[in-house]
Amino acid sequence: MAALASKEALKAALLSQRTAKKAGDAAAELMWAGVARETQPENAKLAKVYEALAAAASAETTTAAATLRVTRDAEEEAAAAAAAAAAAAAAAYAAAKKRKAELEAELELVSATIADNMEAAGEQEMVVDPWTVEGKIDYDKLIDKFGSKPIDAELLARVEALTVGAGRVQALHPFLRRGTFFSHRDLAAICDAAEKRTPGGPPPFYLYTGRGPSSAAMHLGHLIPFMFTKWLQEAFDVPLVIQMTDDEKFLWKGEYKDGEGDNLDRFRGLTYENAKDIIACGFDKSKTFIFSDLDYVGHMYPNIVRIWKAVTYSQAKGCFGFEGSSNIGQSAFPAIQAAPSFASSFPVPLAGSDTLPCLIPCAIDQDPYFRITRDIAHKLVPSGHALKGKPALIHSKFFPPLEGAKGKMSSSNENSAVFLTDSAEAIKEKITTHAFSGGRMTKAEQEELGADLEVDVSYQWLTFFLDDDEELAQIRDSYGSGKGDFWSTTLVKARLIRLLQEMVQRHQEARAVVTEEEVRSWMEVRNLVV
Amino acid sequence: MAALASKEALKAALLSQRTAKKAGDAAAELMWAGVARETQPENAKLAKVYEALAAAASAETTTAAATLRVTRDAEEEAAAAAAAAAAAAAAAYAAAKKRKAELEAELELVSATIADNMEAAGEQEMVVDPWTVEGKIDYDKLIDKFGSKPIDAELLARVEALTVGAGRVQALHPFLRRGTFFSHRDLAAICDAAEKRTPGGPPPFYLYTGRGPSSAAMHLGHLIPFMFTKWLQEAFDVPLVIQMTDDEKFLWKGEYKDGEGDNLDRFRGLTYENAKDIIACGFDKSKTFIFSDLDYVGHMYPNIVRIWKAVTYSQAKGCFGFEGSSNIGQSAFPAIQAAPSFASSFPVPLAGSDTLPCLIPCAIDQDPYFRITRDIAHKLVPSGHALKGKPALIHSKFFPPLEGAKGKMSSSNENSAVFLTDSAEAIKEKITTHAFSGGRMTKAEQEELGADLEVDVSYQWLTFFLDDDEELAQIRDSYGSGKGDFWSTTLVKARLIRLLQEMVQRHQEARAVVTEEEVRSWMEVRNLVV
Repeated sequence: MAALASKEALKAALLSQRTAKKAGDAAAELMWAGVARETQPENAKLAKVYEALAAAASAETTTAAATLRVTRDAEEEAAAAAAAAAAAAAAAYAAAKKRKAELEAELELVSATIADNMEAAGEQEMVVDPWTVEGKIDYDKLIDKFGSKPIDAELLARVEALTVGAGRVQALHPFLRRGTFFSHRDLAAICDAAEKRTPGGPPPFYLYTGRGPSSAAMHLGHLIPFMFTKWLQEAFDVPLVIQMTDDEKFLWKGEYKDGEGDNLDRFRGLTYENAKDIIACGFDKSKTFIFSDLDYVGHMYPNIVRIWKAVTYSQAKGCFGFEGSSNIGQSAFPAIQAAPSFASSFPVPLAGSDTLPCLIPCAIDQDPYFRITRDIAHKLVPSGHALKGKPALIHSKFFPPLEGAKGKMSSSNENSAVFLTDSAEAIKEKITTHAFSGGRMTKAEQEELGADLEVDVSYQWLTFFLDDDEELAQIRDSYGSGKGDFWSTTLVKARLIRLLQEMVQRHQEARAVVTEEEVRSWMEVRNLVV
Repeated sequence: MAALASKEALKAALLSQRTAKKAGDAAAELMWAGVARETQPENAKLAKVYEALAAAASAETTTAAATLRVTRDAEEEAAAAAAAAAAAAAAAYAAAKKRKAELEAELELVSATIADNMEAAGEQEMVVDPWTVEGKIDYDKLIDKFGSKPIDAELLARVEALTVGAGRVQALHPFLRRGTFFSHRDLAAICDAAEKRTPGGPPPFYLYTGRGPSSAAMHLGHLIPFMFTKWLQEAFDVPLVIQMTDDEKFLWKGEYKDGEGDNLDRFRGLTYENAKDIIACGFDKSKTFIFSDLDYVGHMYPNIVRIWKAVTYSQAKGCFGFEGSSNIGQSAFPAIQAAPSFASSFPVPLAGSDTLPCLIPCAIDQDPYFRITRDIAHKLVPSGHALKGKPALIHSKFFPPLEGAKGKMSSSNENSAVFLTDSAEAIKEKITTHAFSGGRMTKAEQEELGADLEVDVSYQWLTFFLDDDEELAQIRDSYGSGKGDFWSTTLVKARLIRLLQEMVQRHQEARAVVTEEEVRSWMEVRNLVV
């Protein structure tokens, strides 16, 4: 019996020694990476844990060595030591379990304190993620923070040569000329592909954009990506897929009421309503596929499963900030928005060309989704994909709300937006009453200083929608100096009102002729690359 | 300026008072529920949090009242107090943030200690969840722990009247007669529905079972639910859906290799291979739909989204024990296994009868999935569903592995199982060499004491597969006493070997005639309730 016990003790001691060595090695490795620790806060945190482990390991090694020596000397003694060690471990286990419960309770209280006092502490930072845009946005800082690249003059020239140069469009879109789309990932590689295109050959890439249908009334801000995508489609002559994330909207904003059921069908209906507005933007129908997730997910499911498999909950949480109280669809959803980045999600529309690169025009707040996608993209494509599966991105700034240029426009605040359903009268009233003015308090001051164009919403909106560069320059100079034809806010607002009334009326006319049947035909699963 | 500041302070004070009152009310409400707290540990935890809140709230109320009084007396003073309060809150915020970081660090270390010392502390409990079955299983304890109900004599008599009584089968299945299926949820309600059936009318419920296709070679343990489901289908004359969770298997066991890609298609292929074995069990084809998740998920997606929306990550984690390092598909998957519990997931196969109840035969380790499903089921069905959407369940014990009756059989250990592909020779060799024997060490001992039937795998397996109750009783008496025709292990093993050889040969013959085309026709989306 004693012999057996001591043999067990010897085994345990050897095992303990090996474990200790492994922990020590890991700690050493991490400590060597001293430079990385300086720059990366996660590494610093990890390093601390490993240091603690290393200390424990060193203690353990000592104990282990001692146990080993004693074992060799006197087997009975060793058995006793092993029993004591087991008892100590059991005690440590019990103590640690108790301490864990205490820590968790305190953590809960401390977290509540943080939440309660956050505002008072003046923590109102710039927040940009797929669900929140808050604070004053510094776009250069965003490029830094997100690790994307600015669209520079050289890249713009390449795009111009490939589009205007090919005779498909007259000029670069104002959103490019004026830096509304200001940031990108791998747009140069998309240009490479476009440059290799052969006449009559297959398209060099496809476009992917989308919309979360949360309200029937879309506003001007919602149009930005679609206006630009329409231009890209025409300028590059490429297929386009448009994802309607009715599932996402239900996961975040859906409701269930006892006796009434849920409102999933409401979001399905919104998909159809919003599709009409999208169709009214004038896409090339033969090259455009609009799909509802609720209807189409089955086709993408193998890719969704692959993306699920490749992304851990911690990664997704780090990117999107889920809580334990978030529903399990919210952590699953990133894969559903990622799936259309892969041509293999469209076996019929893109006719099985699994290596076709993808370009995604989107507001910069959607970038985190696609950063995760890009990280794991190589797992979803055959070799031979020019971008190793990574979707290319082209990012827009936010369209400022009427009341002032912070954050982005919201459809939940009626007065912060001009809706595509607004009457000419309503547009006039909204701009006149609510558009935040950068003009001065008195006529004299305005004539002396000119308006602050940076914060003047009417001027900002004109930079989005007034196509004529010369007129825009004239307004900028006149309003900015307080002299000339557009010296006052009233005059600038009048110009904007006229422009928006024309734009919205054109849109309403185009939308009015889109029938239910027409919507269904855009949403039919069909080949776009014949 | 001072007037404005004091107005703000007044507003803040009033708001603070309201918040305090709300928190106080909530705390009071919870403290009244004293009885609930005694019985439900979650409530006790919540109550603690609310008590703390109430204490804080009471302090806050006092402060607020004071602020209010002072405000009315002297506006300047109040402004100062408000500023001080803001500063205090900011300080509290900063301190709490610091403390939170400390707590998290300590928590990490403590958790590591727990993990390190768990084994030493002798914590090797019975573990039963959808992925782990460990330790000696106490089935009565499982019923208690899971909150299901034992299948009693009265319920068995009802089932017998509805099945044998209707002339569809000769006798109750041995798995019912011998308690292999031992536990249930709402089986009585299923009997209610069956009793109301009208001749020629629609089926009273449908059956749902499934399989995770992780290997081409299915073993005898895998057959248990299918053998029993086949009997249920025949005995109740009802439709059946069989889910092949190829997506699940990829999420848990899939692999990706650089240069080679992933093995998703392998699991797709296993679905087809396993479907052949399932078809060989002899189901009624006109009433049976086999589907692969990878192919069929699109049809169930609206229900999947509803289930996702209704389940929080914490709930799913509490039930299945995900980690941050688990992939995001693993936390999404419970909804995909839950969706077939609702008839509306089968608009074509079940022809839109959204209130049709569902009965799920499964091993008891799958119960946690369906407990969550049952909790949220009412959100997925119209009123008029007899079970408010809850799927009924009938649970089996585990089929013991060859080497001994702990845990369940595993297909990863070749010698722990008899496979459906094994030759007669292999079956003989496996039973002879590996089946754990409850017989005694010597002939004399065996004749005196008889075998320990509780641990004798050969005898246990006979209770599963030997249909003849009389012969089984004879073997039990003879082997258990060490006297008569089956007094020794060798004789009992010989009987088992003959039985299994016949069974497996019959299965292999039935499987051999199942063509690829035949599999596809079982997997075709079609109406089962014409």
